[in-house]
Amino acid sequence: MEAPILCLLTDFGTRDEYVGAMKGVVLSRAPHARIVDLAHDLPAGDVVRGALALAAVVPMFPNGTVFVAVVDPGVGSSRRPILVDHARATLIGPDNGLLSDAAPTDAATYVLDKPAYHRDHVSATFHGRDVFASVAGHLLAGTAVDELGTFTNERKRSPVPAVKWAPNRIVGEVLYPDRFGNLVTNIVADDLARLRTNARVSLDERSVGAVLRTYSDVASGQPLALVGSTGRVEIAVRDGSAERFFGGGRRVEIA
Amino acid sequence: MEAPILCLLTDFGTRDEYVGAMKGVVLSRAPHARIVDLAHDLPAGDVVRGALALAAVVPMFPNGTVFVAVVDPGVGSSRRPILVDHARATLIGPDNGLLSDAAPTDAATYVLDKPAYHRDHVSATFHGRDVFASVAGHLLAGTAVDELGTFTNERKRSPVPAVKWAPNRIVGEVLYPDRFGNLVTNIVADDLARLRTNARVSLDERSVGAVLRTYSDVASGQPLALVGSTGRVEIAVRDGSAERFFGGGRRVEIA
Amino acid sequence: MEAPILCLLTDFGTRDEYVGAMKGVVLSRAPHARIVDLAHDLPAGDVVRGALALAAVVPMFPNGTVFVAVVDPGVGSSRRPILVDHARATLIGPDNGLLSDAAPTDAATYVLDKPAYHRDHVSATFHGRDVFASVAGHLLAGTAVDELGTFTNERKRSPVPAVKWAPNRIVGEVLYPDRFGNLVTNIVADDLARLRTNARVSLDERSVGAVLRTYSDVASGQPLALVGSTGRVEIAVRDGSAERFFGGGRRVEIA
Repeated sequence: MEAPILCLLTDFGTRDEYVGAMKGVVLSRAPHARIVDLAHDLPAGDVVRGALALAAVVPMFPNGTVFVAVVDPGVGSSRRPILVDHARATLIGPDNGLLSDAAPTDAATYVLDKPAYHRDHVSATFHGRDVFASVAGHLLAGTAVDELGTFTNERKRSPVPAVKWAPNRIVGEVLYPDRFGNLVTNIVADDLARLRTNARVSLDERSVGAVLRTYSDVASGQPLALVGSTGRVEIAVRDGSAERFFGGGRRVEIA
Repeated sequence: MEAPILCLLTDFGTRDEYVGAMKGVVLSRAPHARIVDLAHDLPAGDVVRGALALAAVVPMFPNGTVFVAVVDPGVGSSRRPILVDHARATLIGPDNGLLSDAAPTDAATYVLDKPAYHRDHVSATFHGRDVFASVAGHLLAGTAVDELGTFTNERKRSPVPAVKWAPNRIVGEVLYPDRFGNLVTNIVADDLARLRTNARVSLDERSVGAVLRTYSDVASGQPLALVGSTGRVEIAVRDGSAERFFGGGRRVEIA
Repeated sequence: MEAPILCLLTDFGTRDEYVGAMKGVVLSRAPHARIVDLAHDLPAGDVVRGALALAAVVPMFPNGTVFVAVVDPGVGSSRRPILVDHARATLIGPDNGLLSDAAPTDAATYVLDKPAYHRDHVSATFHGRDVFASVAGHLLAGTAVDELGTFTNERKRSPVPAVKWAPNRIVGEVLYPDRFGNLVTNIVADDLARLRTNARVSLDERSVGAVLRTYSDVASGQPLALVGSTGRVEIAVRDGSAERFFGGGRRVEIA
């Protein structure tokens, strides 16, 4: 049997020791765990971005993988630490919407209210280490999910904003620019099927054109819209950055 | 028995191949090693920062973990490569103070002066690969610490500056801003016990207020002082960055 | 027998989920794989930089290591996905020169044209996940290289520019600044043997001096040339950054 996989996704960056401290806490409790870094440079405090990243990654991993995700601007306040358990994966993190896009609505949720599975002293500012990593370590070491916390019927909804519809027209928004300057939106591929073929995309009233297949469908330096690798409409520039080309931009309309 | 854990902490960044080269050298000598990245974006050449990060992380890991830490502005000069061995961990890196806060004063220190355990050609600029990773690989493959080097009674002291005391008053300094803009100081929680209750914190003569418990003890956008997750007094801003709020700042007084 | 090692080298950064998605695809196909991060912050789209990093790292790893490298500005165009197999390593990535410096000229090359080993739906923009990681997973799970693709006699050449020679004079160029501001050139140690002893280095007509051994051969803040850890002539500044000191610069002459 393979050693269990623990994936970490945080906004902690890699210039401090925060991620390293979490790994140590996991390995102290589950020395056989295999730790996999997903990303640690999520924009600080950006729960939308973290929720999208987690939702994109979870389906790629083998069933039974454990994910600890921490984008937690409310640490130390009354927001609850939770564990979400479903057929494919177990997710651990703050109850601020971060985990919601990565689990079906009916996934079982547990409030992590059992201090026996936290570190002896829980700091007010670093639940990633003192609660989430500790609980993940105990889980990987064999403790059952319903021992680690108390079942609850509530869980914060997805923080990703919904699109707006008019007849033959969808209005969405840029959620974030990725590393390459692609502007990722909240409009998904399925939405396009409800629009006329060759509907055209605009960004803050500026024309981008039809939704094309890939970068090389336009000349170098030219903008385009396409369905990106996570199934979302993106605005891109071939061999360039849409973020720089458009100088930002938020409102995306396709009609 | 679990495969041994090797933790890496460097200022090498992740845009060059330096970290990857170190991992290859370790795995060539100890193919079963499990390599754990702690952090690689420590500020370049900042030995204080590296020493603090290492000291914060070592206690989180299982006994017997091996740590290679490299923040080494004196590489190629006469500074010595060392190994520090104690009950909890083995530390490998340059003798510039980087390892000193992570080990008790009486930990055994060895100068890594046995070329047989270094790479065949040792470059003048990359001891992380040619000395430290190579020695770590041999250690993980079973070579005893006293074969890898020669015992010494000397080791550079901690580079972390000491605080200054006056009656009912402590004067410290900001050591660094972390990823979130929290200003981490050299004043630790134990120091607070020697001051009057509700002593107030100032940064370069600007008032910060009393030491509170967590971010949500002030309104969004407001500054506060608190004891951070490594037991050090930090100056923070709720939902913001103290680094930006104060525009830097160095001298911290609590009285 | 050790679990096989899969090394990842990309320009995907660590603020998006791209690297995490690749890891999931590998582990879904080869649950026992040990994934090693080499570097993910290669400058976006910089194939020269990626080719140099890969070539520097491959020789450090045990024979049989598998490397997936992705710096792929032509993704979705007609550039071919390939696998390069030689005695020491197997390399997987785009056929844009990225893999060429890390393999002998006569290494066997395969075009990855077997959709059975790709993800069910191959996106136009993320072959790192949908082709390269998927093929790597199947390889680590035991599929033979000649099943994964079709043998070819062609492979793109190295993208690293050649130096120019005149009698007792070599003209090269700065390839990139590394994390520390060292300016790494296309002139290698062997080239120096063909020049007079104590030949002097200049950068865009500005004098740098002779090629020295290490940083401490000059005073703090002073520039120097030296042979760096990958065997290339570098221009550096002791305790500083040559990139900042010289404000860039491209043409390097040694005579």
